[in-house]
Parts: sequence; C-alpha cells; structure tokens
Amino acid sequence: MSLDPARTVAELDELRALTGDDNGAQRVAWTETWEHARAWLREKVAATGAREEIDEAGNQWFTLTGRSEGALLIGGHIDSVPNGGWLDGCLNVLAGVEVLRRIAAEGEPPLTVRLVNWADEEGARFGRSLFGSSAAAGSMRDQDEIRERRDANGVRWEDALREHGVDLDRVLDARARLEGARAYLELHIEQGPVLESMDLPLGVVLGTFGVERHRVTFRGQAAHAGSTPMDKRRDALAGAARLELEIREIAKRTGGGAVCTMGGVVTKPGIVTSVVETAECLLDQRHLDAQKLAGMLAAARDTADWIAREEALEVDWEKIWSIEPILFHDELVELADASVREVSGTSHRLPSGPLHDAAEVARAGVPTVMLFVQSLRGLSHTKLEDTRREHLELSVQALDRLAAKALERFA
Amino acid sequence: MSLDPARTVAELDELRALTGDDNGAQRVAWTETWEHARAWLREKVAATGAREEIDEAGNQWFTLTGRSEGALLIGGHIDSVPNGGWLDGCLNVLAGVEVLRRIAAEGEPPLTVRLVNWADEEGARFGRSLFGSSAAAGSMRDQDEIRERRDANGVRWEDALREHGVDLDRVLDARARLEGARAYLELHIEQGPVLESMDLPLGVVLGTFGVERHRVTFRGQAAHAGSTPMDKRRDALAGAARLELEIREIAKRTGGGAVCTMGGVVTKPGIVTSVVETAECLLDQRHLDAQKLAGMLAAARDTADWIAREEALEVDWEKIWSIEPILFHDELVELADASVREVSGTSHRLPSGPLHDAAEVARAGVPTVMLFVQSLRGLSHTKLEDTRREHLELSVQALDRLAAKALERFA
Repeated sequence: MSLDPARTVAELDELRALTGDDNGAQRVAWTETWEHARAWLREKVAATGAREEIDEAGNQWFTLTGRSEGALLIGGHIDSVPNGGWLDGCLNVLAGVEVLRRIAAEGEPPLTVRLVNWADEEGARFGRSLFGSSAAAGSMRDQDEIRERRDANGVRWEDALREHGVDLDRVLDARARLEGARAYLELHIEQGPVLESMDLPLGVVLGTFGVERHRVTFRGQAAHAGSTPMDKRRDALAGAARLELEIREIAKRTGGGAVCTMGGVVTKPGIVTSVVETAECLLDQRHLDAQKLAGMLAAARDTADWIAREEALEVDWEKIWSIEPILFHDELVELADASVREVSGTSHRLPSGPLHDAAEVARAGVPTVMLFVQSLRGLSHTKLEDTRREHLELSVQALDRLAAKALERFA
Repeated sequence: MSLDPARTVAELDELRALTGDDNGAQRVAWTETWEHARAWLREKVAATGAREEIDEAGNQWFTLTGRSEGALLIGGHIDSVPNGGWLDGCLNVLAGVEVLRRIAAEGEPPLTVRLVNWADEEGARFGRSLFGSSAAAGSMRDQDEIRERRDANGVRWEDALREHGVDLDRVLDARARLEGARAYLELHIEQGPVLESMDLPLGVVLGTFGVERHRVTFRGQAAHAGSTPMDKRRDALAGAARLELEIREIAKRTGGGAVCTMGGVVTKPGIVTSVVETAECLLDQRHLDAQKLAGMLAAARDTADWIAREEALEVDWEKIWSIEPILFHDELVELADASVREVSGTSHRLPSGPLHDAAEVARAGVPTVMLFVQSLRGLSHTKLEDTRREHLELSVQALDRLAAKALERFA
C-alpha cells in the first residue's frame, strides 16, 4: 500500500461535512462536535493497527510500536475555532494518518511512530491556547487561572474538562508522553500570504516568533472640540497615531521578518465634541531573534516617551503577555528543506508568526520542525480559509518524505 | 436702585444650593428640578414688575413694557447638563435679572425689555440641543424625529414635553415672540482657555463657528499580526492615524481660529492578534468663515483619499451633522467691545466654538451679540467649572453697559 495524498483531501472533505455547517468548522475543543471528530479519527486510524490512548491532558495518541522505544512524533489538532476553516489543525492530523498508514503498511518501523491529536490548540472556548501541548511539554504554569476561567455561558473550564475526562490536577502527568521522543514533525497551513506571494506551494518553518504584547495608554486632557484652540490641546489620540506610524518604521529598521501591530485603540471619552483624553493601544511585536525583539520593544518604549513629551501627554505601559522565540532543529530544518525540494522543486524557509503546538514540543527539548503549505489570500480562522487541492496533496507527500528521512536519521 | 453685581453671585450660590448636589448642577430640562429652578426664577423677577409668560416651546419670558413695542432681548438658559457646573447658562439668566432690575428701577425704558430663559439649551436628556431657541427662531425642522426620541429610561420626548405643558405640534408658534425684537444680548462663560491664557476677564464674541461633522471609515483587511509581513498589510488604523495627524496641519494652514478634532476611533476587530480591518473616525471641523470651513472639509477629503491610495484602503464619508457659521451683528460687536473696555480696560474679540441660543436668534435675523467671561482651565459641563467671583461681577457690569448702549442705539 503506497501513500495516497488524494485520500487525505477526501477525508478533509468528509470531516468538513461531518463537523461543519454553513458558517464553517465547529470543532471547538471540549464540545460534543469535537468528541465526535475524535471518535471519527479513531475509526480512521483503526485499520493501521496503531494503539489509541487519551492522556491526562486530553491529547489523543495513536502509537505504532517500532523496533526502538525512541519515538518519532507527528502532531496536529482536530479542534477548530467556531466558524473556522476546513484545514487549520486537521490537515496536520489527517496528513499524519496517511503517513502512519504508509509506515504501518511497510512493517515494523525502526522507531516507534506516534501520531498526536493535541487537545485545544485554539483556546477558542476558554481563551487560552495550546492547552494539551503545553501540559505535555510541562510548560503549563497557570492551572489556578485555568481553574477559574469560564466560557461565554459561565461554565467553568475545570468543569468542562472533567466532563471530557480531564482532571486539571493531573494534566502535567501528560509529560510522560514526550519521554523517548527523538523528533517531532508538524504540517500546517501558513495562515499568511508569504508562500502565495512567492508562488510556492510549500515552505520550511525556522521557528516561531517571540512575542511582546503590551497595552500602551496615552493620557492627555479632554477638552471641548469647539472652544479649545489647536495649540492648547493635549490630544491622547495624537500620541496613539504617532506610535502607530512609528512602529512600522521600527519593524522596517529591524528587518528579518520583524512585525509590529497596533491591533486596536480605545479612545475615551470617544465623542465627536471632545478632544481625546485617553487612548489605549494594543501593541504586538514579534521576531524570531530574541535580541532583535528586545530591541524593538526598547525602541517602541523610547518612541512612546518622546511622543508623549512632544504632545504633553503621559504614557503608561502594561505587559499583556510575552514569549521568547523558539527555534526549530537545524538538522530537521535541512531534512524538511530536502523533502520540500523533492516534491515541489523549490523550498523557502520562513518563520512562523502564529504559535503552534510544535513550539511547546520544541520548548520541551524535542528536536522539532514544521512544514507550511500555502494559504490562499493568507486567510484562516474563517470559512474562507482555503488551499489548492494539488498543494494539499504535495504537503502530504512532503510530510511523508520528511517522516521517512527523520526515521532514518533518528533511529 | 443701582446695579448690584455681587447680588448676582449670591443668587448663583443660592441656585446652586437649591438645585445642585455633591456631583454638581442637576437642572436637566423637562425634570422637576428644572421646574423648581424656573419657579425660583419667577420669584426673583417678580419684584421688577416684569410680566411672566411661558411660550409654546416652554421658554420662560419676563417682559418689562417700554415706550416702544420694539424689544431688547436678553437671554440665557437655566437648564444644565447632569453633574454640570454652577455657571453655564444660569449666569446669563441671573445677570439678565440684575440688568432688568436696574432698568425697571429707572422707570419706563425706551424699548420693551424682555428676559428669556430658553428651554433645554443643553439637550442633555434627549440628545438634541437648543430646543426652545430653535423653535422661537423657526429653524426647528425635526419635530418628527423629536417625537420619537426617548431618554435613557425609554420615556418619549413628546410625552415628557406634554407633562411640562408643551405640545410638540405647536412649538413653532413661539416664533411670534421674536417679532419686534431689535437686538438680542447674551452673556456666557467662555468654556475654553483663550481668555484665561490672555489674562483677560471678558471678551466679545464674533459669532459661532460653522461645524462640519463626519464619520470617516477606513477599510483594509484583517490579517494575522504574526503571519502577515509589514509590506503585505492593509492596515485601516494607519489610515486613521495619518488623518488624525493631517487634520492638525489642515487647521494650522487654515488659521483664523480653525479647529479640527478626531474625537474618537473605533477599531475592528480591535484585537491584539489582528491587523485592523476597519477604523471609524469621528471628525469635527469648525471655522467662523464659511468658505474656510468648506476648504477645510475639502482638504480633509483630499487627504483621506491620498492616504487611502497610499495605504491600499477604502475610505467612506458619512455626514453626521453640519451648521453654517453664524456671524454676530457688527454694530453690536462694537458696542460690546466698548462696554467690555469700560469695565475691564481691555477687550478681545473671539469666535465661539460651542453653539449657543444666541446663534439661533441671530439666524432668525435679530441683531445679536454675546459676551464671554473667562473660564478657569477652560472647563465646563463638570462640577469643576469655575470663574473668579470678581470676573463674574465684571461680566454683570459689562452686560449692563451693553444693554444701556443697545437701548440707546436701537430705540
């Protein structure tokens, strides 16, 4: 039995029909539809003979025992955001199923091969992503906060977890599942426009960006829009506007794929008859290089300070969240590059802006790499998310080549 | 009996104690507290012998019959915003009462003198200002909309009017009250920082600014803050930011007291992980010169267009409201200037950014002028609103001088 990438595309269609509706995919973690998808996956994998286990964090593992206890891991997530796309997360899993089939058909592999369907990558229902992979990686530190989180209907996360067989006090026991892991592979849609703009089907991911996320608040003075001369204003929105334009220059100066985003501004009082008194800006900065990321943050702080001085404003910074850059494994990047070139002729290396389960696995010290397949118009987290079918098939082939090379190299 | 400006200040204190609380003035139109204030005013004026009438729009008139049916009008409004200041509106009325006393004490005046307490200048409860003066001026056109307006508790404006003896179908009959008016005078706190910054107690108002108010919406493309390179973004917030900074240049270039304000921006989706797809900006532009105001609007439109082109955005304009500049009467401005100089040594002429009842009266063709008295820190519509007591007394004197000059000139 040889690899059948067209079957993966057919199974993606099947899963879409089973767990989606007119608004898109509805496989939100810790819901019935998600359990339905997991049961469906169980049936799909059964024929390979891989053994299924659900770990303490709700991750679904399929294990094909090999000649060694050392393991090659292939991962993905079948959960989606509400009204999500047909590929984000489940392409990874179903491509992994196809690779598992090919390996199983060839007899006992040199390493144990494990496919993992991570629980709740998206964090869509409770607002905290990478649940299952961060538990398995041992990096989860916020159990107390998780315990108290509630969904939009007021249901406590801890209670929802219990309904799906997960005891929050034991989730870190899932760490045992990464013991013996020699390599971790993950395929994902790019969720960005880079490969499409280069007209390339596939790319190799160098790592995931470090992120610095802050709320920057400028404070001036509310004043009547009619009676306050221009030179007597302390307009907080002017501070926000100048910072919004300056962060683009900071990203450009830094280079190397740097991105800076002001994702929103809240203006108060926010009425047409008043100069803005406070402007709260959401700032997101990302880079693959930790030093450059630190430099971008320092530059944004300096910039906000001189803007505040020039505009006679006060400025406050409040950290929302940050994570360091996570670099993937050099040798695996080379193997991935060779795999992509074999199936599509040309490869391209790029960082990942979004986080992925792979980042958690890499943080835990497991050699890791990811493949990206082109996203049309860079869209994801919407039913408009799409990738050409021929590119999906190429991506299954590339993951298979990479798995074969990794089995050979890490055995 | 001579003019007693200290009495006006004492009566302002008395009214504050009667109709305010720890949060400020509470004389919101069409409430019991407002009726209470009107009844209190009736008692204050009674001793002058002036005849009280409430017109079809709820305006409270006090008439001192003179040798001619031609009338000198002095106006103000006793209504306030909730948690308002102790001066906005009622200073005008109480200074007028003091002037009425002085004129009454001197015997039959050459013109009929009428003090008017306009109904609902602020529009605080139902969100539409200048109710009584626009009815009397005949410029009210929105009765159908007024009928359906409701307050925060769902009470229809029409019903609230009826409770206070006002029939919405008859409010334009109040127009008869302006027949025979030869001049209209109004004193008001500046509500801005200009006189304080010049260390002047009093100023003469040249007219009220024309206003152009628009919602300007930039539309780009939501995109992942991590996976979308800087050069592939269509960031609607960049459009808003550039327009916010450019309108300051437009105001500066235009000069002559021009003001441009972006009072608020609403960003969508407005989350830290996404480039902004739409940015809705509230734009307010004001000038005393109609042509310059039109020029500022055209410049803002051109600017938004080239910003949209450069940023690959779409831009839409939606008119919220506009009003033409209203210029006060040249001769009355000269008389006001002379009056201010007589009581304080120096005068200054300035436009009014906020609208006032005087603008409605001027629109109706009655020769009109206003006096401003300094506002501390330019604050109003807050309990922090204040003016030095010696300046309040000077303002009563200036209004009295102006009334005397107008009686002489327009008799």
